[in-house]
Amino acid sequence: MSNQKLFNVAVVGATGAVGEQIIGLLEKRNFPINQLKLLSSARSAGTTIKFRDQDITVEEATPESFKGVDIALFSAGGDVSKALAPHAVEHGAVCIDNTNAFRMDPNTPLVVPEVNISKVEEHNGIIANPNCSTIQMVAALKPLYDKYGISKVLVSTYQAVSGAGSRAIDELLRQTKEALEGNPVNPDILPVGSLPVKHQIAFNAIPQIDKFQENGYTLEEMKMIRETKKIMGDESIDVTATCVRIPVVHGHSESVYVELKSDYELEDVKKLLSEAPGVTVVDDMDNQQYPLATEAAGKPDVFVGRIRRDLGNTKGLNLWIVSDNLMKGAAWNAVQIAEYIAAK
Amino acid sequence: MSNQKLFNVAVVGATGAVGEQIIGLLEKRNFPINQLKLLSSARSAGTTIKFRDQDITVEEATPESFKGVDIALFSAGGDVSKALAPHAVEHGAVCIDNTNAFRMDPNTPLVVPEVNISKVEEHNGIIANPNCSTIQMVAALKPLYDKYGISKVLVSTYQAVSGAGSRAIDELLRQTKEALEGNPVNPDILPVGSLPVKHQIAFNAIPQIDKFQENGYTLEEMKMIRETKKIMGDESIDVTATCVRIPVVHGHSESVYVELKSDYELEDVKKLLSEAPGVTVVDDMDNQQYPLATEAAGKPDVFVGRIRRDLGNTKGLNLWIVSDNLMKGAAWNAVQIAEYIAAK
Repeated sequence: MSNQKLFNVAVVGATGAVGEQIIGLLEKRNFPINQLKLLSSARSAGTTIKFRDQDITVEEATPESFKGVDIALFSAGGDVSKALAPHAVEHGAVCIDNTNAFRMDPNTPLVVPEVNISKVEEHNGIIANPNCSTIQMVAALKPLYDKYGISKVLVSTYQAVSGAGSRAIDELLRQTKEALEGNPVNPDILPVGSLPVKHQIAFNAIPQIDKFQENGYTLEEMKMIRETKKIMGDESIDVTATCVRIPVVHGHSESVYVELKSDYELEDVKKLLSEAPGVTVVDDMDNQQYPLATEAAGKPDVFVGRIRRDLGNTKGLNLWIVSDNLMKGAAWNAVQIAEYIAAK
Repeated sequence: MSNQKLFNVAVVGATGAVGEQIIGLLEKRNFPINQLKLLSSARSAGTTIKFRDQDITVEEATPESFKGVDIALFSAGGDVSKALAPHAVEHGAVCIDNTNAFRMDPNTPLVVPEVNISKVEEHNGIIANPNCSTIQMVAALKPLYDKYGISKVLVSTYQAVSGAGSRAIDELLRQTKEALEGNPVNPDILPVGSLPVKHQIAFNAIPQIDKFQENGYTLEEMKMIRETKKIMGDESIDVTATCVRIPVVHGHSESVYVELKSDYELEDVKKLLSEAPGVTVVDDMDNQQYPLATEAAGKPDVFVGRIRRDLGNTKGLNLWIVSDNLMKGAAWNAVQIAEYIAAK
């Protein structure tokens, strides 16, 4: 007989790509669950999902769904989080929100466990999970920040379509088939579902993820810029991002230039990264080994390779950072936070 | 009756992807040709290629092939250029070499017509065509260099498989089909045909183009670094590159950060670029217009967009530069040089 506390857990967006991964991780990690509530929009309600050999029926998420819930994991879009998370908090739940709704709210901690897990303590009911492309980058940068300080980060991303949801995956596969058969390719969703202009993603690279802001950056780029500063707790880091969608299903890759605040030895950097929690170094030039999206898919690690000195700046360092955007970039980061809360 | 001088022209590597484009451009541009000699390896000799309604039989390239040739365009690999270009020069031909064989030779001009066409005058029989990823970048940087000076360039590339030859195109299409059908994907050529380890390119991003050098950079990255300095005629520019192969057939995209030597007005930069020879600005956020590989394919222009200020450095500028790697990145740049020689 165990006297481990068991929790009532709700997953909002249970039928989405991230929701599925969260449910899988809760089972795999043997999360201390009393009751699991699976919630979705009215459209997807009624579906059943297997969890620990039980069929759980997905229910429509309403303000009353959160009665008795201890921990609620949200990944159903920013509007759903904005509408329902406050009700969940009222009912006494701690919300881990995987959307953009509360990330930059000064009263909401923005947490990557390897970087700033203690911020969870400061929550007012909601803890925000950062953007996928930010999470993997800061997980790799944190040990460098602690030892050397960081003055500048320049990142260009190579992002998978799964970050835009399962309909974007379907679109990539459909367009690719159309192109291979020599047929016209019909863009329907990407780059941004809610905007009028669509571009081909099959055999292409689209330098737009989310809407353009006044300053010429996309929202995805501004997320990387703002969230990195907030998570690292240092507004002085100069971050620039170019976010690009490429024809990859799962796994974001990032070409990252970092300017440290002091000189460094390359071997020290490699050692630091290889000892960093959640980070796996894949960096063997002789055997042509470096992180690849196809190999990162389905794994929780942040993979780092192509670790090399800048040739013009003794404080400059280049990295290639790859991780599964639905795992560490979303579901796994959220479940890590939930495990920390459960352990408290 | 015209008294325009006509030239005997040889194309070495006539059956390759770049050779085909060169022949097409010579015809389209109505190049002043007396006799066109099409040369290849013994394996491809005997093929016939149509040029101006004539079937020309491809001959095996030998040292004696260049007797009477005025202009020889080489794109059959560095070893062929090293072996045969000196013979062509002996026979009095001017060679325009599209390989890496002579690019960094101090006696060989490395020419992008929009940047340093006058260097052609200094040739000793051979003029080198730069690497595809370098050409499109320097064409866009030159007007900025002239007005503001450039202290640093950081580039991450999104390169098409056609840069690795037509067998790499076949491999991408074959692997993509295998992956779509749920079959195992069999990597055979990429990332580097002559190296033992192969990686999947379908639905992936491979951060290796060409062999690794002692300093941790690939040869492709070092080409971009060294060639940029040579073409701009300024060794003080600090260039860093990360070169990545992605599942695109034609057209290299580049995320480029430039640190100018002085502050600038964004509107001035846009105006400069839109007036620059060979450069077309596609930069309309309201209508989601920016350069795309699929739209650059088959065109001679260098397309520039996503033109925006760095948010932390008033001298920093970000650009997205796209061009067809077989056109401006190879064939068109070579034919431009040939046209300059012919006009002299």
